[in-house]
Amino acid sequence: MAPSSEELHAIRHSAAHVLAQAVENLWPDTQITIGPPIDTGCYYDFLFTKPISDEDFPVIEKEMRHIINQGQTFVVETHPIKDAVAYWKKKGQRFKVELIEDLAKEGEKEVSFYKNVDKDGKETFVDLCKGGHVQSTKEIPADGFKLMSLAGAYWRGSEENEQLTRIYVAVFSSKDELKAHLTMLEEAKKRDHRKLGKEMNLFVFSDMVGPGLPLWTPKGTVIADELEKLAREMEERAGYLRVRTPHIAKGKLYERTGHLAHYKQSMFPPMQLDGEEEYYLKPMNCPHHHEIFASQPRSYRDLPMRLAEYGHCYRYEESGVLFGLMRVRSLSMNDAHMYCTEEQFEEEFLAVTNLYLTYFKLFGIQKYVMRFSLHDPKELGKKYVDKPELWLKTEDLVRGVMRKTGCEFIEVPNEAAFYGPKIDIEVWSAIGREFTLATNQVDFDVPAKVGLRYVDRDGMEKVPLCIHRAPLGTHERTIGFLIEHFAGHFPLWLAPVQVAVLPVAQAHEPYARSVAAQLKEKGMRVEYMDAVDSLGKRIRAGEQQRIPYLLVCGEKEAKDSSVAVRNVKTKEQSTLALAEFIQKTLADITERKLEASIG
Amino acid sequence: MAPSSEELHAIRHSAAHVLAQAVENLWPDTQITIGPPIDTGCYYDFLFTKPISDEDFPVIEKEMRHIINQGQTFVVETHPIKDAVAYWKKKGQRFKVELIEDLAKEGEKEVSFYKNVDKDGKETFVDLCKGGHVQSTKEIPADGFKLMSLAGAYWRGSEENEQLTRIYVAVFSSKDELKAHLTMLEEAKKRDHRKLGKEMNLFVFSDMVGPGLPLWTPKGTVIADELEKLAREMEERAGYLRVRTPHIAKGKLYERTGHLAHYKQSMFPPMQLDGEEEYYLKPMNCPHHHEIFASQPRSYRDLPMRLAEYGHCYRYEESGVLFGLMRVRSLSMNDAHMYCTEEQFEEEFLAVTNLYLTYFKLFGIQKYVMRFSLHDPKELGKKYVDKPELWLKTEDLVRGVMRKTGCEFIEVPNEAAFYGPKIDIEVWSAIGREFTLATNQVDFDVPAKVGLRYVDRDGMEKVPLCIHRAPLGTHERTIGFLIEHFAGHFPLWLAPVQVAVLPVAQAHEPYARSVAAQLKEKGMRVEYMDAVDSLGKRIRAGEQQRIPYLLVCGEKEAKDSSVAVRNVKTKEQSTLALAEFIQKTLADITERKLEASIG
Repeated sequence: MAPSSEELHAIRHSAAHVLAQAVENLWPDTQITIGPPIDTGCYYDFLFTKPISDEDFPVIEKEMRHIINQGQTFVVETHPIKDAVAYWKKKGQRFKVELIEDLAKEGEKEVSFYKNVDKDGKETFVDLCKGGHVQSTKEIPADGFKLMSLAGAYWRGSEENEQLTRIYVAVFSSKDELKAHLTMLEEAKKRDHRKLGKEMNLFVFSDMVGPGLPLWTPKGTVIADELEKLAREMEERAGYLRVRTPHIAKGKLYERTGHLAHYKQSMFPPMQLDGEEEYYLKPMNCPHHHEIFASQPRSYRDLPMRLAEYGHCYRYEESGVLFGLMRVRSLSMNDAHMYCTEEQFEEEFLAVTNLYLTYFKLFGIQKYVMRFSLHDPKELGKKYVDKPELWLKTEDLVRGVMRKTGCEFIEVPNEAAFYGPKIDIEVWSAIGREFTLATNQVDFDVPAKVGLRYVDRDGMEKVPLCIHRAPLGTHERTIGFLIEHFAGHFPLWLAPVQVAVLPVAQAHEPYARSVAAQLKEKGMRVEYMDAVDSLGKRIRAGEQQRIPYLLVCGEKEAKDSSVAVRNVKTKEQSTLALAEFIQKTLADITERKLEASIG
Repeated sequence: MAPSSEELHAIRHSAAHVLAQAVENLWPDTQITIGPPIDTGCYYDFLFTKPISDEDFPVIEKEMRHIINQGQTFVVETHPIKDAVAYWKKKGQRFKVELIEDLAKEGEKEVSFYKNVDKDGKETFVDLCKGGHVQSTKEIPADGFKLMSLAGAYWRGSEENEQLTRIYVAVFSSKDELKAHLTMLEEAKKRDHRKLGKEMNLFVFSDMVGPGLPLWTPKGTVIADELEKLAREMEERAGYLRVRTPHIAKGKLYERTGHLAHYKQSMFPPMQLDGEEEYYLKPMNCPHHHEIFASQPRSYRDLPMRLAEYGHCYRYEESGVLFGLMRVRSLSMNDAHMYCTEEQFEEEFLAVTNLYLTYFKLFGIQKYVMRFSLHDPKELGKKYVDKPELWLKTEDLVRGVMRKTGCEFIEVPNEAAFYGPKIDIEVWSAIGREFTLATNQVDFDVPAKVGLRYVDRDGMEKVPLCIHRAPLGTHERTIGFLIEHFAGHFPLWLAPVQVAVLPVAQAHEPYARSVAAQLKEKGMRVEYMDAVDSLGKRIRAGEQQRIPYLLVCGEKEAKDSSVAVRNVKTKEQSTLALAEFIQKTLADITERKLEASIG
């Protein structure tokens, strides 16, 4: 039987101890630090006296297997701070000493150790640890783990500290699970959006423009434009109103909303203008939308008011964490803010959830989960606005609606927005990789703070609730996800070039050109590949660009008014009357079909 | 016969002297400074010992008329610097002294005075002046001028200097011309885009966001979106490729293009990032587009390449000169850059010119002129890149093409872009007011500077020419112009709300609702005005919003499936079958007709 997620967590956490023990056995003068479980296994950070490389992985793995097979048990012990410090000092492990001293500063009186003990009762390894382990190392599958990579990591994540060596380990409950994971990684590598983005010429980065700031080439822009068109259509149908707002604002806008207090580290630095005024690039569109809401007296008859914008925001990320389209500094957000009464909240929130599901269907996303992020009472007044009752009330409201949707959701503490709870939507790509794609947030705080009001039926002024939603997230992340999800084989409606037309030889150019012209005339995105290069070379070029259909036009086709169709994704070939090809393909595009009808 | 533009210029310049003489006669202790002719008359800057107000205008105008009627002549005299300084020192006119001393520093040996002399040969007024006057004050029409306004103005335009009082005078060649001008101003006031923008709720400014940064409300966004849709359609048809680029870039991008050297004062201040790196808001899209061009090897077969973007740029303007949508800090530009060979230049440039003409026709712009802005050899190396031969060659190229177009154009020295000559398109609104709307520039410098290359037919690497064009200019300015041009009565395809449906009374709501639903179903922008307010009040509200059609639905209409149509612009009324209304209106919208078919 597959282990539960807690069991797997314990296996992974225990594997980290086994890794540390193995390293200690092999290089006894190594400083050990910390090693938590993660989604796909665990890691441990070490300070080696001599650098290691992935060539050392087999010997570490062998030592780990040896430890696992010994069936060592995990035993907990509790020690007063003073004794604990003395113990680690004696062992010469200064990072552990520092950790314990910090715990003492936070008021801890004692700490727990986890010991490994072998069959003979001999102590084989000790770590400072809060627990969450298996009973015996035998519970860790000896063929279910694999050392994956090395990375540099600063002690406690701060650049001012020493640099450590992090060893990542994939840990799964069985050999098969590990294999599936490795296959997925292998496939993900092939589908890497940075690699495909280059092959398909979708976006570029420029050192002169800056890291994390993608420039969308004509082909990538087609995808972004099609996504935007889709979102606009859906939103128009759902009664949204579009607005356009500047990309900058005075600092005092963000002081009032609380962004400068709670979010400054993610904002770009200010520009000094007109003397002392500070202007910021907008990290979010909401404060601007609030200004539009506030620019007119509003009545309950105006609500719900849904202001939508493809707003381009800028967020500061350390250059080290930037990653292709997945972690960027410029974000094209499919954003909207719905101002509503408390009674309207449920319907609005449900409508947004349904919008997500519509998009998932269009993209063929089969697995998703809603992460319901809550506040943490300990962080009130710091990470979160200090309104404990409103937090609980709003979280209850959202929980109630989420239960009604019947969607699967999990609750995650301490990940809310500073102004209210949020639902992040996690989806799995076709190869089973997880992405956070979209967000849906409830804001019970900022509307009051910035003075948003409406006159209710009873003539009283009230504060609207505000739902922030971005079902297509940002173009950057979504397109990055879709590239991997589709392995570059976009559905026709999203494909930068939908059809390539290839004359077999120069003699067939007149017919091929007329085919291309007819398709263009119908509004299709067509590339004409003239017969300068060999047919094989052109077919390969079309395949590399993942153009859905390659239409080869030779003598027979010219005679029959037909086309020889190669479906690049399925690799199937068929010959159709041109008219039939046009009719089927246009229908696929108009209906935004996931799979092309031909081949 | 109407005077030539030089004659009018002389009349206006002479009127400035008459104004100064009148002021001197009335307030002899006034310091006089300078007073040039301008487009609609002239102004003169004074330092008064006691403030004046527009209540003093009649007495000044009377004195001016007196001077005009005297038929004073203008006489030129030349004086060595030393004598000139002594003369003005003696007169106690310190600003004149400063001006002469500065001329001396620039190497002038003598200066000219223009004297007014009356019939008796008596000297009535003297000014330091380069000339360009009528012979006698009688040539200034005594009923063709009017004092318009007072304004504060710093001596030599610098905030660090003394503040002067500027008197603006409208000066025309006849009473009728003056009257036409005053009527136009009156009409322009009624059509003021700031006033109509508020009444029609098209855009707002927020003190929290900042001056010069309009926020487009849902209604204004409709206009911006429709313009963008139009431009995209036209550009797609003309073979443009769309791109999307970030709103910021590293300073070194703008160092390389020359923007920081030539354009810094119009750029926003930098943001300091990642240590020492400076990032700027983009003032133009070209450097980003160049990066996309440069991201791939290019061949002559890729040219012309036309990269288009509705790029949002930011330019710094002093807060004092910001004006509604006309002078802003955020610009939504209908931008594109065409990279082409020298042989392709003519065709590309002509195509752009034709695009302008298409737009003018759509907007009903009947009068326009192309201002061909040239460099000034004296500013080479300062305002302009220091490549004198290339300037002359490119200006000749453009001149040749302009002559071919047959469009009216005038040549204006010293107004080019720093990288090449440009054509600014000036248009006249329906009430005869002049606006600079669009621009078309040739760049012979930056492509080489940033290393743009293509491989030509002969295998050699060459540098493409770059045409910068923005036929719809910026949304801000264009929409500001269109509001005034149409007096808010936008053609159906541009109108934020196209049709309002008004039931006469509550009893007619079911029919009226079904009418509204049918129009919406057809994709029209419909506002349903329910019978809570009186019909009269709702009609006035619809008129104030300049909704093209108000459809009144009463008993008769419900019975006949018809609608009573009020054309808000023409104020005409008619009753039509609903089906006919729909058919005609849809055709007007699809064809982007200037005038609505009904009424």
